[in-house]
Formats: sequence, structure tokens, C-alpha cells
Amino acid sequence: MAITVVGSVAYDTIETPAGKRERCLGGAATYFSLSASYFTDIRVIAVVGEDFGRRQQEVFQSHNIDTQGIEHTAGKSFFWEGSYLENLNEAKTHNTELNVFAAFDPKIPESYRDSKFLFLANIDPVLQRRVREQMPDVKLVAGDTMNYWIKDHRPALLEVLKGLDILLINDTEAKMLAGNNNLVQAARAVLALGPKTLVVKHGEYGATLFHGANSATELASEPEVQGTKIFRAPALPLEEVVDPTGAGDSFAGGFFGYLASQPQQTLEAFRRAMFYGSVMGSFACERFGTERLQQLTRKEIDDRFNLFRELTHLV
Amino acid sequence: MAITVVGSVAYDTIETPAGKRERCLGGAATYFSLSASYFTDIRVIAVVGEDFGRRQQEVFQSHNIDTQGIEHTAGKSFFWEGSYLENLNEAKTHNTELNVFAAFDPKIPESYRDSKFLFLANIDPVLQRRVREQMPDVKLVAGDTMNYWIKDHRPALLEVLKGLDILLINDTEAKMLAGNNNLVQAARAVLALGPKTLVVKHGEYGATLFHGANSATELASEPEVQGTKIFRAPALPLEEVVDPTGAGDSFAGGFFGYLASQPQQTLEAFRRAMFYGSVMGSFACERFGTERLQQLTRKEIDDRFNLFRELTHLV
Repeated sequence: MAITVVGSVAYDTIETPAGKRERCLGGAATYFSLSASYFTDIRVIAVVGEDFGRRQQEVFQSHNIDTQGIEHTAGKSFFWEGSYLENLNEAKTHNTELNVFAAFDPKIPESYRDSKFLFLANIDPVLQRRVREQMPDVKLVAGDTMNYWIKDHRPALLEVLKGLDILLINDTEAKMLAGNNNLVQAARAVLALGPKTLVVKHGEYGATLFHGANSATELASEPEVQGTKIFRAPALPLEEVVDPTGAGDSFAGGFFGYLASQPQQTLEAFRRAMFYGSVMGSFACERFGTERLQQLTRKEIDDRFNLFRELTHLV
Repeated sequence: MAITVVGSVAYDTIETPAGKRERCLGGAATYFSLSASYFTDIRVIAVVGEDFGRRQQEVFQSHNIDTQGIEHTAGKSFFWEGSYLENLNEAKTHNTELNVFAAFDPKIPESYRDSKFLFLANIDPVLQRRVREQMPDVKLVAGDTMNYWIKDHRPALLEVLKGLDILLINDTEAKMLAGNNNLVQAARAVLALGPKTLVVKHGEYGATLFHGANSATELASEPEVQGTKIFRAPALPLEEVVDPTGAGDSFAGGFFGYLASQPQQTLEAFRRAMFYGSVMGSFACERFGTERLQQLTRKEIDDRFNLFRELTHLV
């Protein structure tokens, strides 16, 4: 079933040990959409400037992504420049130009309103909440955030968390949000803030799923660790990480895209979704920007899913 | 089949956020032996001082660990003092007193010489090699090392690596040994130094097994990642890490103890050994020193093994 996603569509200039690329098509909504498009129909809400042309539009359209909700305005698109020269796990930001994104006021096309799945990518929590409130009939809402909103916009973020079924963040963000350096304790504290399920991404070490007591899934048989129901999915150790930009958004796209493609969001669907998230995150790192995500096949995705299973499963 | 282990038997004074303990029984050979004793017969080679008395002896004997090879000499046992107040993943050393360990010259009792498995715990590579050479008929040799030997005793360490079937080290050590920050590339470089199999421990994120081209196991069906045959095992996210001291040695004990208990060291035995390693590492962290390792049952171990499987396996 269709997912509506709200977030950034942007240009990124990226430098990594593998080289440098100027003004790649990027942004959280772009990575999420391309990744999720291999699983289900995607509808995007974003804002772009005059530098977003037919070629960029075609990247979305060639994946059957609905771009009616991408607003075109005067000015330049959101631009980010960063490098990973010393540490592939953490970007060093050199420049951020919000441009048209500074005045972003998400508008939801009428044709998007029957979406049963909503993804709130990493943007101002005030905007996340505004979109959430305009789509009261969605079945499942997932969202992302980052250290900036956690530190400096906490009250607005806490309002968003109350309305989330699933929060996807990384280790550092989870620990910062909870004010606790122990992963299990931090997860429990975050679940107490509202999300029914928490996915904590560990970069090259995979991701952990924590289901809260009020999770929508059938949890009777889920293994418990000290009272918390969890599942852990691996990541693929990559010989060469060309560009980690967007790996987290691609994980979210694979995870939520797969969930939305299933008739029911059962426990087993959540577990498989964790694997698909890891698969899409690993593909994203193999080339610069969204290059790899643009040209996958479902067979390549399922082959890697099976590889991940073999890599981690006992007979 | 019996494992002979050579390494330190020591006293540790440990401070963690959970509290402080003075002079716990510790040392790599102690953690390894206790952990491995749940799987097979263990024979220890070590040196202790006059402060090692009947009570300490009984800890070993109550687990049927052969202590004939523990030499008692005049002086005090190896002593280490450290804390984990800021970072549970990295000990801060406050004091190291080698004491009787400074003149350690491992002597192998005649009754140990039919051991088919040998574990060279983290000690001076010159001593590791000396023990290895005195036991030419072992079937499988595994070993550990640390940053100090990698940095300052590289030539001696390289000699040891040539004679190892399995090397067990952590991420930092693997990357330092290879001079490469990419895990897959580092693993390949380490395998080129001699070990047929490399186990890289990731602390709370589990561990990865890399089989080299000359691995002793039947590898035909092992999944490959860019030409390297790998397997990844999870770690249990713990709500409270009381004391991480010895977790790596306990992992090694569970891993190698399980392998030695099997009639053949097949691929599947290696994979299950990875899980048993993670299981024993997680138990070790639950109490100070070797407290938890002293009082386990095989049923508790197998229950946690099954929990780890459920935690990570798709249906």
C-alpha cells in the first residue's frame, strides 16, 4: 500500500576517500523514496528550487514515484556539502544552504490522502507534526530525527514522538534522546515517550528493533531481554564504502517500504523489514549519492536479503 | 577433547559504574578456562604467587580444570587495577604489577601433551611461540593478542600468527594489525599473515568470523562477501553491564570450548561456536570478575544460545 513521505529533496556535494562528487541528487526524502520504491508505491512531499529540472524529475518518475507533492518555487534547492575523509561513520558538514527549504510549508495533494502509510523524514518536528495532523487516517506512521532537533527543539519533537508508531534513529541519537548511555535502558526510555516501536541503527553493525508494550504487532512469542522485546539484524561488512550519505534513509525506505507492501504488519514482517532495511542501507553505500539505488533490481535486493540470512543464521 | 591454555592468572581491582571490587580472581587464562570448562576439559599453564591460595585453587577445581600446570613461586601474583567509569567499552588502566609474571617461563606438564587443542591467551608472543613449539601435535591452535604486542612486539607476534589456526581479536586490534580501517580489508590482510580463520569481536555488537582460503573447514557453501567467507554472530544488548572485564576471554572460552567439544570442526560447528562465544561473553559482563562464570549451568548457557538464535533469526 502507498507510502506518503515528507522530507528534503536536495543537492549534495560529497567528498569521501573514494573521491568527490558535486551536486548529487540527495536529501532524505529522495533516498527514502528510491529505496522504498522497490517495494511499494511512493508519494513525495517536498520543496525544490529552479535548479531541480526534468532530469531529476525523471529519477523519481522512472521509479513510479508520485511527485505531485513536490512543490517548485523560485530560488535554489536545499544544498549540503560534507566530507567523510577521516571517519566514514560521521559526516563533517562544510556548508548547509536551506534555500527554498527555509520556508517549506508542506502541502498534501488530495490524491495522497488515502495513503495508509506515512513517513516523516528528518525535518523540523513542527513540520512533521503539521503533516501528521493532516493525515489522521493513516494506519502506520514512522519517523526519523537527528541530534539538532533532539538538542534544540525538544518540546516540538516530543509532540511528534507521541504520534509515531515507529521511530528510526541511530545509537547516538537514541542515547541523546534518552539521556542514557546504555542501549537497552535508552530504548525503554524512548519507547516511554510515545513510539510503539523503536529501530536503532548501528551503522556497519546492523540495527536493533525494540517493541514497546503497546506495539501493534502480535508479540506473544517475541524473545525478551530483561522485559524488552527485541530483534537484531546484521549489516553487511563492505569492502569499500564509497559514500555513506543517505544510508540511514535508505534503511528506512527498505524497512518501511517492505512493511507497507505486506498485507499485515506482523512480527515476522517487522523482522524481515529489518533485514530489507539493512540490505538497502548497504546498497546505498556502494556508490556516490543515489547512484546505486537508482539502478537496482528486485532480484539483486532479494539475493542480498538471502546472503544476509545465510551470513547470520545457524542451520 | 581437552584444551591446554596458557595465559595469566591474576588479581584485578575493578571499578565500574556498578561499584568497585578489590582483588577479584582474574586474568585471561582464568576467564578462558572457566568459560570453556562448560564445554570440555581444560588444562591451565600459568604462574601465580604466594597470594594464590586454596580458595582460588578451588575455583578451578570445582570446574574440573586441571591446575597441574599452574606454577607456584615466591612473590605476588600478577595484579591489574582499572576502571570503566566513563566508557564501559574501554578500560582505563591505573596500575599493572607483573610480579611473578615478569619471569614467567611456561612449563608444560607431561600429562598435558596429548591435548589436541591449544589456546594462547594474550601474553608475550615470545612465550606464545615457545608453548606452541612444545606442542607440535595439537590439532587446532587459537590465540589472542593486544595493542601493546601489535605496536611494540610486531616481529615476535608475526611469528606466532604464522602458526595459528584461529586468531581472536577486537576491531581496533584487527585494524591496527592490518594498518587498515576497513574491516573486510583488514580481515583479509590479517588472514594473509597466517591465521586460517579470524574472529573479530565487536563488543556489544557481536563478532564476525572470517575464513581464509586455507581454512580447515568445509567451506564450499559458505556465503561470500567480496571473496571473503564470513559469518556474523550477535551480542545480547544488556540492560546493565556490571563489569566488562574478561568478556573477550570468555568469548574465546565459549568459542574454542564448544569447537573442541565437537567431533569435527565443521563450518556449522564454527558458526555455533560464534554464538556460544557471544553467550559466554554476555554472561561474563553480568557480575564483577568471574562471579557469573563460576556459577552457570549448561542449561542457562543453552537457553541463552536459543535466545540469541530467536533474537536474530527469521522464521
